[in-house]
Amino acid sequence: MTSEIGLIGLGTMGAALALNIAEKGFGIAVWNRTPQVTEEFYAQAGPLAQRIAPTDSLEALVGALATPRAIILMVPAGAAVDEQIAALRPLLDPDDMIIDAGNANFHDTNRRATEATGPFLGIGVSGGEEGARNGPSIMGGGARPSWDRVSHILQAIAADYEGSPCATWMGEAGAGHFVKTVHNGIEYADMQMIAEVYGILRDGMSKPPDEIAAHFECWDAGPLRSYLIEISAKVARAQDEATGGPLLDAIVDAAGQKGTGRWTVIEAQHLGAATPAIEAAVAARNLSAGRRDRVRGEKIFGTGASGMTADALNDTHLEEAMIAGKILCYAQGFAMIKRASDAFDWALPVPDIARVWRAGCIIRSDMLDDMAAALEAHPDDNLIFAPFFADRLRASEHSLRRVVAQAALHGLATPALAANLAYFDTMRTARGTANMIQAQRDFFGLHGFERLDDGSTGQHGPWATD
Amino acid sequence: MTSEIGLIGLGTMGAALALNIAEKGFGIAVWNRTPQVTEEFYAQAGPLAQRIAPTDSLEALVGALATPRAIILMVPAGAAVDEQIAALRPLLDPDDMIIDAGNANFHDTNRRATEATGPFLGIGVSGGEEGARNGPSIMGGGARPSWDRVSHILQAIAADYEGSPCATWMGEAGAGHFVKTVHNGIEYADMQMIAEVYGILRDGMSKPPDEIAAHFECWDAGPLRSYLIEISAKVARAQDEATGGPLLDAIVDAAGQKGTGRWTVIEAQHLGAATPAIEAAVAARNLSAGRRDRVRGEKIFGTGASGMTADALNDTHLEEAMIAGKILCYAQGFAMIKRASDAFDWALPVPDIARVWRAGCIIRSDMLDDMAAALEAHPDDNLIFAPFFADRLRASEHSLRRVVAQAALHGLATPALAANLAYFDTMRTARGTANMIQAQRDFFGLHGFERLDDGSTGQHGPWATD
Repeated sequence: MTSEIGLIGLGTMGAALALNIAEKGFGIAVWNRTPQVTEEFYAQAGPLAQRIAPTDSLEALVGALATPRAIILMVPAGAAVDEQIAALRPLLDPDDMIIDAGNANFHDTNRRATEATGPFLGIGVSGGEEGARNGPSIMGGGARPSWDRVSHILQAIAADYEGSPCATWMGEAGAGHFVKTVHNGIEYADMQMIAEVYGILRDGMSKPPDEIAAHFECWDAGPLRSYLIEISAKVARAQDEATGGPLLDAIVDAAGQKGTGRWTVIEAQHLGAATPAIEAAVAARNLSAGRRDRVRGEKIFGTGASGMTADALNDTHLEEAMIAGKILCYAQGFAMIKRASDAFDWALPVPDIARVWRAGCIIRSDMLDDMAAALEAHPDDNLIFAPFFADRLRASEHSLRRVVAQAALHGLATPALAANLAYFDTMRTARGTANMIQAQRDFFGLHGFERLDDGSTGQHGPWATD
Repeated sequence: MTSEIGLIGLGTMGAALALNIAEKGFGIAVWNRTPQVTEEFYAQAGPLAQRIAPTDSLEALVGALATPRAIILMVPAGAAVDEQIAALRPLLDPDDMIIDAGNANFHDTNRRATEATGPFLGIGVSGGEEGARNGPSIMGGGARPSWDRVSHILQAIAADYEGSPCATWMGEAGAGHFVKTVHNGIEYADMQMIAEVYGILRDGMSKPPDEIAAHFECWDAGPLRSYLIEISAKVARAQDEATGGPLLDAIVDAAGQKGTGRWTVIEAQHLGAATPAIEAAVAARNLSAGRRDRVRGEKIFGTGASGMTADALNDTHLEEAMIAGKILCYAQGFAMIKRASDAFDWALPVPDIARVWRAGCIIRSDMLDDMAAALEAHPDDNLIFAPFFADRLRASEHSLRRVVAQAALHGLATPALAANLAYFDTMRTARGTANMIQAQRDFFGLHGFERLDDGSTGQHGPWATD
């Protein structure tokens, strides 16, 4: 009996995805470069093993599949994907499909789609191991007919949000991996804002982890309800087995990154999109890694956190500031997506992107459901101008101001929250200050400026005739 | 009689540089793709024409030069440079040198240096037309012997800072254009901070342009003394001939950019360098261009600037905040340069970079002289840890806090100043908040964390065994 789909690469994510596929009733043939990994995977598959066909060569994998074939690659992003495609393609028929489900840079996916000699999809899969096993969020890219051929499988294994599967075709070529990249950029900003509020609670308000956990538990029952808030509470509650104390206090404050946040920032530069909160989050991770510098900095300048009085900030200020910050940083992400949609001649389904993120992925939250509705009703507007979110911002902006101001006065770093506030104040200021910059540029470089009164461009100041 | 050097491309910058070279006593042969441009340039050269040899073909240009030849290209960055090199190289002898003095991306310069079949330099030239004519800052890259062959000319035409010429060899290949890129990134941040303070004066304190000019004139006599502060005063003083009112009020608040700021941000991501103030400045320019959005934003949310009382901020607060912000954003730039020096296996002469920026270029200032001394005395430290600047920051940080906090409370966007403050507070916090981020990453992705107590890595929280 042949299997409906194949999968190459039984690492953490690949194994979880394969079990998920088998559990949903599809026969799946699997192969891994190291045969022992395949054997162990199969041995531990339990009752699902009946729908899994382990194979010991690429040829055997191909032979085990119903035609036209579809094979998922879950191998490390980069050269390994190209090598795997090069090894696999000659064994396939012309209408057999390769699906890269790894964490590819979307430029690579664009290239692979162009180079492909047969059907090719690039799909972004978010949700970590747990998501891959029980229902990830899937952002698909490639030719629509190719997507349609396998969408029944992808939708069956995806997360479900109130009856809607979180697996959506985003557009041609690298569109799916692009959307996944922006997802990860937003994830960085979301996590950074949580870390900043954690810092205010810990250093500004001197609260121990279990009290901090109680705050996050409370917020997880309100408008901020989301996976990241939920796990922040759990993380703050966790005890360290080694010391018996709070686990958070045992963890080094140096954040790693696998690069997707940086990709978002780089792409934002190419697109001319403003993503200051994501940029602040990536910079914060970079700085966190330089712990020796920070220790030295504290010796020289003293600790920042001091003197915040009990009435400076309350629980509601922090909650509302995070609500405002969240809306603002998602607005930056969606605005970047709209720019990319134009620049790359995609027709990215913006409201559906919000929908596909509602469940399965790391940034999943109820607020994304409201965002989808707002983006649907106001497709040409920045998210913050949609009435629902404009009202929400009007109600919360004062708390964001207060939190940023108090943190600034008391030496607590809030780069992402502050970047979001500056974004808001820039976006609500009709008469900005870049006239000063244009005047300077004309002064030293004769770059010319536009006049407000008659719209004439290429104008110069009196210095031009000096 | 043959000329000592050749120049291709008589646009604004090329013409100014050619006149500068002739004025310093060197014979220069010039050629432009459009012969009429060459003729007009020669006709307007006045007494300098005696040292200028106009030529009407590439062959004639090459024939007019003493051997071994050296020819400066001042053509638009990008494909035009490659085309010009391809056309020129076959006419040259093996030891003739091509010098790209345009605004190249340093990656292109790296490539051209590798591809070059003869001596090749890439030099960053800063200072706009005025600098090119009377003394620019020159950042050289390429093989050292090539630099040494022409350095007497480049140092003669460069700006002079108290007897030192602002023309320095930075390293191999694209090192010069790389340093120029970071220069431009810092320039963006410097200009953005000035625009932010201008906005506080205009919208927070309701001051008219001539009063604003008086502030900048006053600051230009103190520690902030610099070209950009000087021209900001002049810009604010300037009258609009058409209306008779202040020119600043006639200029549209949408800033242009030629891309070098973005290059800095992109390269910072690749290097893992934190350049939040530069990133904020680039984002602010991007947002300034979206004027229609901002007009809509003000209709929806109302104008931000309101309610700042007269005693909220004074002149000294603003001056000190700019001093702190300036130190912090230059520290980011120099830290990025140090990272690049390691990553690219250059040995960038960091103190000399500060020196070469002291005169001629757009960011020229006296403070750079102090920075050179600090970077020389403390080569392994972040600039903010050098005692001179640590003292300066201790004296000014409170003003920066106050300005950022007041602006936040009153709806005035200060993205670059706020990013600098967050950078400072991050750099002086030994125990940061990224332990929360690492815990989250381990929770959803089993990425592992490091323990504070025993330094063991790859540790997991209790969720790992769920």
